[in-house]
Amino acid sequence: MTNFASDNVTAMAPEILAAIADANEGPAMPYGEDPVTARVRARFNDLFETETLVFPVATGTAANVLGLSLLTPPYGAVYCHRDAHIVVDECGAPEFYTGGAKLVTLEGADGKLTAGVVSDAITGAGVVHHVQPAAISLTQATEVGTLYRPDDVAAIAKVARAHQIGLHMDGARFANAIAALGCSPAEMTWKAGVDVLAFGATKNGAMAAEAVVIFKPELAAEFGFRRKRGGHLFSKGRFLSAQLEGYLEDGLWLRHALHANSLATQLAQGLAGLPGVTLHHPVEANMLFLSLPESVIAGLKAGGFMFYDWTTPATAAGMREIRLVTAFNGTGEDVRAFVALAADLARKAAE
Amino acid sequence: MTNFASDNVTAMAPEILAAIADANEGPAMPYGEDPVTARVRARFNDLFETETLVFPVATGTAANVLGLSLLTPPYGAVYCHRDAHIVVDECGAPEFYTGGAKLVTLEGADGKLTAGVVSDAITGAGVVHHVQPAAISLTQATEVGTLYRPDDVAAIAKVARAHQIGLHMDGARFANAIAALGCSPAEMTWKAGVDVLAFGATKNGAMAAEAVVIFKPELAAEFGFRRKRGGHLFSKGRFLSAQLEGYLEDGLWLRHALHANSLATQLAQGLAGLPGVTLHHPVEANMLFLSLPESVIAGLKAGGFMFYDWTTPATAAGMREIRLVTAFNGTGEDVRAFVALAADLARKAAE
Amino acid sequence: MTNFASDNVTAMAPEILAAIADANEGPAMPYGEDPVTARVRARFNDLFETETLVFPVATGTAANVLGLSLLTPPYGAVYCHRDAHIVVDECGAPEFYTGGAKLVTLEGADGKLTAGVVSDAITGAGVVHHVQPAAISLTQATEVGTLYRPDDVAAIAKVARAHQIGLHMDGARFANAIAALGCSPAEMTWKAGVDVLAFGATKNGAMAAEAVVIFKPELAAEFGFRRKRGGHLFSKGRFLSAQLEGYLEDGLWLRHALHANSLATQLAQGLAGLPGVTLHHPVEANMLFLSLPESVIAGLKAGGFMFYDWTTPATAAGMREIRLVTAFNGTGEDVRAFVALAADLARKAAE
Amino acid sequence: MTNFASDNVTAMAPEILAAIADANEGPAMPYGEDPVTARVRARFNDLFETETLVFPVATGTAANVLGLSLLTPPYGAVYCHRDAHIVVDECGAPEFYTGGAKLVTLEGADGKLTAGVVSDAITGAGVVHHVQPAAISLTQATEVGTLYRPDDVAAIAKVARAHQIGLHMDGARFANAIAALGCSPAEMTWKAGVDVLAFGATKNGAMAAEAVVIFKPELAAEFGFRRKRGGHLFSKGRFLSAQLEGYLEDGLWLRHALHANSLATQLAQGLAGLPGVTLHHPVEANMLFLSLPESVIAGLKAGGFMFYDWTTPATAAGMREIRLVTAFNGTGEDVRAFVALAADLARKAAE
Repeated sequence: MTNFASDNVTAMAPEILAAIADANEGPAMPYGEDPVTARVRARFNDLFETETLVFPVATGTAANVLGLSLLTPPYGAVYCHRDAHIVVDECGAPEFYTGGAKLVTLEGADGKLTAGVVSDAITGAGVVHHVQPAAISLTQATEVGTLYRPDDVAAIAKVARAHQIGLHMDGARFANAIAALGCSPAEMTWKAGVDVLAFGATKNGAMAAEAVVIFKPELAAEFGFRRKRGGHLFSKGRFLSAQLEGYLEDGLWLRHALHANSLATQLAQGLAGLPGVTLHHPVEANMLFLSLPESVIAGLKAGGFMFYDWTTPATAAGMREIRLVTAFNGTGEDVRAFVALAADLARKAAE
Repeated sequence: MTNFASDNVTAMAPEILAAIADANEGPAMPYGEDPVTARVRARFNDLFETETLVFPVATGTAANVLGLSLLTPPYGAVYCHRDAHIVVDECGAPEFYTGGAKLVTLEGADGKLTAGVVSDAITGAGVVHHVQPAAISLTQATEVGTLYRPDDVAAIAKVARAHQIGLHMDGARFANAIAALGCSPAEMTWKAGVDVLAFGATKNGAMAAEAVVIFKPELAAEFGFRRKRGGHLFSKGRFLSAQLEGYLEDGLWLRHALHANSLATQLAQGLAGLPGVTLHHPVEANMLFLSLPESVIAGLKAGGFMFYDWTTPATAAGMREIRLVTAFNGTGEDVRAFVALAADLARKAAE
Repeated sequence: MTNFASDNVTAMAPEILAAIADANEGPAMPYGEDPVTARVRARFNDLFETETLVFPVATGTAANVLGLSLLTPPYGAVYCHRDAHIVVDECGAPEFYTGGAKLVTLEGADGKLTAGVVSDAITGAGVVHHVQPAAISLTQATEVGTLYRPDDVAAIAKVARAHQIGLHMDGARFANAIAALGCSPAEMTWKAGVDVLAFGATKNGAMAAEAVVIFKPELAAEFGFRRKRGGHLFSKGRFLSAQLEGYLEDGLWLRHALHANSLATQLAQGLAGLPGVTLHHPVEANMLFLSLPESVIAGLKAGGFMFYDWTTPATAAGMREIRLVTAFNGTGEDVRAFVALAADLARKAAE
Repeated sequence: MTNFASDNVTAMAPEILAAIADANEGPAMPYGEDPVTARVRARFNDLFETETLVFPVATGTAANVLGLSLLTPPYGAVYCHRDAHIVVDECGAPEFYTGGAKLVTLEGADGKLTAGVVSDAITGAGVVHHVQPAAISLTQATEVGTLYRPDDVAAIAKVARAHQIGLHMDGARFANAIAALGCSPAEMTWKAGVDVLAFGATKNGAMAAEAVVIFKPELAAEFGFRRKRGGHLFSKGRFLSAQLEGYLEDGLWLRHALHANSLATQLAQGLAGLPGVTLHHPVEANMLFLSLPESVIAGLKAGGFMFYDWTTPATAAGMREIRLVTAFNGTGEDVRAFVALAADLARKAAE
């Protein structure tokens, strides 16, 4: 089977495995007091061109919700897109880690919030009956593979600052966003007003490693305690850090993302003109959402391609939506084979 | 530095790293739907000679508190030793994951609870003012390196059953207990009445892998949801399972534990008779707690040995308590060197 | 000032105060073990024509969220209208008391859910990434003063049963609904499929008393513990029960509601035809939402009438929405005076 | 039956009922925006001779745990006596309201903590494995009817300040303490270093009213939200405040407490010398704990006196411990009758 199902279906990159093996030498102080972790901290400072506070964890959900827990009281409101991972795919982890904060779900085209939508939603400050505005959470790249430009983030951050609330970024596919936009990590985050970033690595080549990157030192004081009581402090912490070190080494993270994005672009170009095929969102990172005739979908699956059906039937009869995700270790051959088969099937379906 | 500080200061065993590398082939379905995880499930059934429900996680705290969360309502009481890891070393994770259950801390010699002590403590059932008896938690091996015999566990399980409450076992050093007692994992757990086990592997050679082993199927229904919302469901789950598979392969887990225990026994034998040295608990697994003259402690540290000071000064003037932990990858040479230096220093101190 | 602001701005009915005074004789066992509470339990059984489990509490929020906490695990989803009190006006109490369950907010005309809307929203059962369907919550009367007929409730209950989830009713204005529909409390609740009811009394004449009425005995076992740990178990419980006893005595509750509803109907009739006045929802209970010229609003306030501005400006220029609530102790004179002044002001505004 | 069981078995004082009736006039703004509440705030400022922030609630548990929730993060440690109400009698409410903080239970003679005991217990600050020192909670009068002098409180407050943690006082029987010690409320609280007080009124004559009194304004910002989400914000708040106003009017609170204390003193004097009777703690407020021959206990119950058996059998054979509580509305006749019967029974038992 050829994987277009998800970037988390992939193995880890050999460089990451090698970094783990390299770290497996002799004793090391536990709980993040090891030299690998110290080096990774310095790496993140370089990457983000500022003093950051970096806490490695093993899952994206942990990174998201531990980060959010710094930004909201239990009676807080977190404004986010209705399709956000924290809303849909974390089984209530945000509510759990924040002690019961409310995710206020907002609408927005192509999976994105706008400053206007967020601004309109922020109400009730100081009124005891209502949850209190606490944070905005953006997903970058979004759940439908679109991107916020630094200016988009800055406009939303301006709203956050006006209401004195925090700005959180779910960066499970942060690398894909940076690769696509060509901006710096700093421009995309703290320079635009992000307070806390969940910096993903797992989908883009690591085994199980993400980093919570905190740009406001005063927020970090309680992170260690919250991570520990969440059960997310690794004793042999060097192996989390080693993954992140390998991930950042020689720009591996960015090469991976550029590659995956490029495959998505090739897929989009190959599929866009086919009869009966409709792309649902701009293809900006490594994901495509498209409507296809059901016969084409069935044929692609029979041809050995693995991907997810996404939603209920699209508008036109006999059409369905699927999601395609390209990964750091996908190949141009796979993409070409997919496009060729899709083209063949689409033409037959159109006859 | 030679490590007697903790078994979590160790690297991972080469066999575990090899198992991770072996699992790093091609795509695999995420979230535990991979073939490695399927094989590990079967392995645990073999090991425990019964149908178990096994959920890999990455940390001992996560394993403990997710397991406990199945056994108690938010208004429950969990009876445990005052020195238990869940009481002292998890920064409130049990309270967090159980939604606020109360750990009722009990006294007991050598880190162990007795059926009598637990039985006396279980009060208030049905009285609305009091937290409700919900579970007993045992640590095996205990925090001071002592062991419950299967009969000890069964006696406490009898109390649990009499009150219709659950029995949880923190098995961060379960392997050391099995190695020392020569009983089967089944005899130590479900045959004695344990409902949920946190089966440790990290301290005994894995990178970051533990398993929650559930012996009552009806308890398992909600585990998946609780693990996910705790942020403990790995997308690339095969790498957690691979560690467990490597750990169980060819009895690696038991060989490691036998070795570590043997080193502890050698340490105890070498240190017991030295002037000014007092062992505080029976040395049954891989940990020793002992009082030494301060000059001996200082000399051992100066000699390149790494270990923790444990408590405030012991009774006699100039004496302190230290903890020594032996690990799966320790060596007899290290032990002999430690004993030789300790003997030399102790004799000088006694002059 | 004449109150059309809220039914909670009212004093308590003299009959309720008398009931409190009557209960203030001699010692009584605390925590609901008193004879008044015993009598109230029997009263509720009579009222609902079945064995109920009744727990008095002092606030509507407590009644709602304690009831909900019986129906959902911490990783559950509670389906409710986007305008529901539990969503908007309880500062996150539902998330708090349920340990973090998610309120899934749904759209619906006139503040009401339909079976179809709810059915479409219930997804993700058994999928570990998603919060799990747990309960539906209806508000009766709704936040905009409309009503569910017993058939409406039954249709939604059918959806709940199909998914094996619970049905909760926020009955802060339950009396107004019964009074308006002329059905029995039984028909509106357990006969239609409601599992837990928050039965309001405070808005309709009590001082501070509501009752959680549980129609499924198996749900009630944990209620007492949850109420106590919420701090809602009164020591001198007789005074909560006395209010409920006084409220149910001689049909006081229903007379109050009939009266308040009647005043609302009179208001609606008097205001409906005025120039520039638009009623926003059917007036079925004791609340009206209407658009008026701003000059009319200002004139009414200047005339001594107290009511709330409700939302941002309505469509037409110079128009705003207000809410009027009639209460058990309002008078026909007040209504006639309000209508007369409104008519006068509206005609002037229209000139 | 004559009540020596508890001060919460009592009715409310007629003055309190009258205050409720007085407040029952006309409409009033809800949620504490009424004039009675405004007056009560001023009253508390007078009583405590400083600017306080006062929040009425209906139960002692609510007052305690809402207050505590201001002083500790979810990963905090609250140091308290092992017999404290928050430990034993609130069904986990402190853990619930604090989001999972840990009550660290300490020993102390006569129900009291000492500065030394508390100081020794405060450990682990800054260490990520341990819950973090957050607050000390004292009960005044204690659960066994003894008292902290202002100097005792100040000594403990000094420990709190040295560790930069909060000081909470459970004052369910605060009036009894003030009455007995003759100090001012200010001397007992903020002047001695108390940050948050749960000021009880229910046991001493109110229907259901307590006040959380906050002496550090910066702690109060979040109280309103926490009270609301706990379901403890009354809509008709004037009736809570009216009770407190009645309670403070003309020193009623202090007269009540002086009376109850005096009855306890009389009981103690009458019982102390009887054969077989042992008082277990100094009788300083309105509670007595004593050992009696079982035949005496049975005879007193048969004679119409209501009180609680307290613990398992005392040291001597045939002896048990009981608790006697005197109340604001008890009488000297009741006390004399109790003592006379006890004397008679004790002499017979001693023959």
